[in-house]
Amino acid sequence: MIPYSAPTRDMQFLFNEMGLLGQLQSLPGCEDATSDLVSQILEEANKLASGVLAPLNYSGDKQGAKVENGVVRTADGWKEAYRHYVDGGWNSVPFSPDYGGQGLPWAITTAVQEMFQSANMAWALCPLLNQGAVEAITAHGSDALKDIYLEKMISGEWTGTMNLTEPQAGSDLSQVKTKAERDGDAYRIRGQKIYITYGEHDMTDNIVHLVLARLPDAPEGTRGISLFLVPKFLVNEDGSLGARNDLRCVSLEHKLGIGASPTCVMAYGDNEGAIGYLIGTENRGLECMFTMMNNARLAVGMQGLAIAERAFQQARDFAKERKQGKSAVSGGAPAPIIQHADVRRMLLTMRVHTEAMRALILETMTTLDISHRHPEESWRKWAGKRVDLLTPVIKAWCTDTGVEMASIGVQVHGGMGFIEETGAAQHYRDARILPIYEGTNGIQAADLIGRKILRDGGEAVHEYIDELHSLVNGLGHVEDDAITVIRRNLAAAVDVLEQATEWLLAEGGENPDAAHASSATYLRLFGQTAGGAMMARIAKTAVEKRADASNGDGTYYDTKLLLARFYAENVLPLTAGLLAPITGGHATVMALDEELF
Amino acid sequence: MIPYSAPTRDMQFLFNEMGLLGQLQSLPGCEDATSDLVSQILEEANKLASGVLAPLNYSGDKQGAKVENGVVRTADGWKEAYRHYVDGGWNSVPFSPDYGGQGLPWAITTAVQEMFQSANMAWALCPLLNQGAVEAITAHGSDALKDIYLEKMISGEWTGTMNLTEPQAGSDLSQVKTKAERDGDAYRIRGQKIYITYGEHDMTDNIVHLVLARLPDAPEGTRGISLFLVPKFLVNEDGSLGARNDLRCVSLEHKLGIGASPTCVMAYGDNEGAIGYLIGTENRGLECMFTMMNNARLAVGMQGLAIAERAFQQARDFAKERKQGKSAVSGGAPAPIIQHADVRRMLLTMRVHTEAMRALILETMTTLDISHRHPEESWRKWAGKRVDLLTPVIKAWCTDTGVEMASIGVQVHGGMGFIEETGAAQHYRDARILPIYEGTNGIQAADLIGRKILRDGGEAVHEYIDELHSLVNGLGHVEDDAITVIRRNLAAAVDVLEQATEWLLAEGGENPDAAHASSATYLRLFGQTAGGAMMARIAKTAVEKRADASNGDGTYYDTKLLLARFYAENVLPLTAGLLAPITGGHATVMALDEELF
Repeated sequence: MIPYSAPTRDMQFLFNEMGLLGQLQSLPGCEDATSDLVSQILEEANKLASGVLAPLNYSGDKQGAKVENGVVRTADGWKEAYRHYVDGGWNSVPFSPDYGGQGLPWAITTAVQEMFQSANMAWALCPLLNQGAVEAITAHGSDALKDIYLEKMISGEWTGTMNLTEPQAGSDLSQVKTKAERDGDAYRIRGQKIYITYGEHDMTDNIVHLVLARLPDAPEGTRGISLFLVPKFLVNEDGSLGARNDLRCVSLEHKLGIGASPTCVMAYGDNEGAIGYLIGTENRGLECMFTMMNNARLAVGMQGLAIAERAFQQARDFAKERKQGKSAVSGGAPAPIIQHADVRRMLLTMRVHTEAMRALILETMTTLDISHRHPEESWRKWAGKRVDLLTPVIKAWCTDTGVEMASIGVQVHGGMGFIEETGAAQHYRDARILPIYEGTNGIQAADLIGRKILRDGGEAVHEYIDELHSLVNGLGHVEDDAITVIRRNLAAAVDVLEQATEWLLAEGGENPDAAHASSATYLRLFGQTAGGAMMARIAKTAVEKRADASNGDGTYYDTKLLLARFYAENVLPLTAGLLAPITGGHATVMALDEELF
Repeated sequence: MIPYSAPTRDMQFLFNEMGLLGQLQSLPGCEDATSDLVSQILEEANKLASGVLAPLNYSGDKQGAKVENGVVRTADGWKEAYRHYVDGGWNSVPFSPDYGGQGLPWAITTAVQEMFQSANMAWALCPLLNQGAVEAITAHGSDALKDIYLEKMISGEWTGTMNLTEPQAGSDLSQVKTKAERDGDAYRIRGQKIYITYGEHDMTDNIVHLVLARLPDAPEGTRGISLFLVPKFLVNEDGSLGARNDLRCVSLEHKLGIGASPTCVMAYGDNEGAIGYLIGTENRGLECMFTMMNNARLAVGMQGLAIAERAFQQARDFAKERKQGKSAVSGGAPAPIIQHADVRRMLLTMRVHTEAMRALILETMTTLDISHRHPEESWRKWAGKRVDLLTPVIKAWCTDTGVEMASIGVQVHGGMGFIEETGAAQHYRDARILPIYEGTNGIQAADLIGRKILRDGGEAVHEYIDELHSLVNGLGHVEDDAITVIRRNLAAAVDVLEQATEWLLAEGGENPDAAHASSATYLRLFGQTAGGAMMARIAKTAVEKRADASNGDGTYYDTKLLLARFYAENVLPLTAGLLAPITGGHATVMALDEELF
């Protein structure tokens, strides 16, 4: 069994020492989120993650999900783990108390979910998809639909899915062909959907599908797509299950990773047509989807963090055990490989990236909570804008980083990393979906430069960069050698980000191909700098807390400072290499004829 | 079936336009290597690669190799492909004519082998391991052993293996425990070896194992290890097969990639002891191994190139077919995704890395041929030193790059990249072994800074950097806008490499931990710059050839120039971000207590 233990102390550092909890507590409805409560939630979640979910990660991957005649059997232990999870009330954590939810902030929810994703990503995908469905129904569903479906989807008695993709419609949803025809108050849905995560499984009695489809008289393109709720079993007025709807799982995909998560090809309406109920208004389905999708993108970014954390823990444990070669420390005897400088570099690279990603994500989720709950509209608006700006950065940077860290995790294991029984390779396989789904990272980069930076003429990004300047200035008042280094390197990175941003604002409108050719590199620069800013704030906090001897946790703060310095000296300088490719790398990109590739 | 077509034109560009063939032809024994001959060899090799080996790559991976009672069954088609290969004389290409080899230069051999590795890496590993065994026997075996084994191993009638690793002895071979006891003229071998590629298979009648073991009176550590030839079947005096030797395949590893390549756990001497014959002298086995290992490291670097090339071709073909979104070019209709700037960036990144790696590898293999064949000792010595310097760079940079390019290949495919049937994921899985085997890339980085740079006080590296300066100066005489850009960016990268090298020479002796902490990043810098230098030379050649209208291949040369410019504008500037981590990234690496990781 490959152990996992949640980094609860690091999460508490962010909530307590870094002040996220203070921000949350000032929001209406979050007053009771005390430090003790958060601590208790994190410890309980860790029990489920480390004790129940983590032990199933490798066995589930080996066994996989199976389909026979449309019936999907999940891996051994899957159902029982789901029961544990629902009975513990974990599914309802973030949702509205109106339908039985606990109404906890997204920041706390995300910390909890990181543990589940680290422990067992293939399993934890099911609740993640359900979460998206609940959000879409909550935001756009009729009261009638909410009354029938929300309580059971929030408790976890039923699960939800998202049905977007068709063979010809992936990134480009304008090509959706699934048909919906009006039939009384309801609709009949006919078509095929692919890549439907947990589109069929054996963990709950009913599954609630949200399906994008097109009405006969709908306009072409993205403004002619509607969203429907299509349950596996129709629901009677008393809430009991009725007839089986006309939909089925045709087959499961054979995937590179997350093998225990059933990825279904779904057929709707092979016979009389599947009964569906409209969500929102006709032809406005994509907008309903996007409500949910932005939050889902933040969640996928969090999965990148989660897989990096799991890969790190495993590589670290291996490096402490495995003895090869000699080190200065060991003298003549074979040394644990963690004593070798190059192995340490790899482990520290993994560790600092998890620290930076977690801080960035939990802070952004706190901002998301502010955008939902703050009593003043100006604050809500500001917070919403900030979350919008950072969403593609978190989705793409954290998932690219997740893949890279999982790859380093394999490398730390040497030959054993390539053997599946070791389990390090599973993270490398599992992680690879993250830059692809929920909008490829290329789509994220386009979103960042187009919708988030060019559209408002740089207002949101300038506000963000101004804050980074303030942070750099603030560090100037801290007397500490590490902080001096961190400040200098952060200042240089912010400078690069600013120059790249100004280039983008000047050129992006005129020359969209140049902007798009540079978008992925710009996003990477943004992510590395944003991560560095969080590490700098962690360092500043560590210095402050360390000065207060009554904290008695000096070693912990020293470690934080050291990790922040490692990031500043080894990750932040990479940004210097990105400016020229961003501002001057595009000349050749569109120049080559297709046939000459 | 996923097609593959060898980049024979690009290979010919290097041999002909770039002058590698001219250098080869001036070497004794290579006079007949004309352009026509090389062209013919490349075209014939392409037929085997594209027509026979490539179609088995995916099916072989799906089926895998199977073991039952020590008998290994390779995937369908494997045996027949091997027969084709041997009958075509491909196995004997680089080896000594004294034993039936064709004595062709390594540069040409490597171009041929790149095709086989691109087409089917899991299959092509078998000949690659045999090649190492042939080299070790050729360099260190007794005449008696050579007479019995070499001809059949060179023709391919038998294959050879390398048995180094044991569970406790991976990177650290000083911990080898397999025992050898003298028994008359021979030895009895007893012990277990792991990770033995093609340690057992059904493609040939006999398998010749080279095994590292320790004599009872051997000194401890690496100076007490001897090398033995241990055949599966003993060989009678008339060359016919005799008794089965006391060795067997215990099991096959379940691996992340190269699933059709049997990776064996081998047991020697479970009964009376396996009969082995000493290669070289007692206790000097590691030196014999290293003769072969350096060449094998170059070959593994070539595998990194090969997998990147295969991944590129597949991603490019997909991007031309797959229609999503609209582009400026397409107007309203769905556009092939190759028309999107971000997809082009990904494809061009893959393409320029294959160009740079291939040029670097084939030039280095030409230098290797010079080191073996040049009539003047001073030239042989110079060439040997250069190959030594570049070997760890090629092994590690090209394999890290292979993994990164295979990952981009998955990304270009979007959701389909994650589905195994597409085949893009296989390259991502297969590639991951390359930074690990034949000396992990961490070991390569240590080799580069220790044995190749610090040991001679920087002599070899200074000579190399001086050449880069000359190249930059030479580019100053070429009037061409692209060359101007390439020259500027190459000059900047060479400057960074020089600064990093001076830091290493100044600090490395005093502070080995700092040097080792920076070694992997230094190697990356070295590789990116060396690749950029090759691209600059390609560009210079393209401008020259284009000027001669009689060449009539202007579009081809324009493309080369454009690719070199893309590399100069998008890859070379990254080196600017590596200097600070190399010279200033190590302060924290050794500072953290193990328990605090």
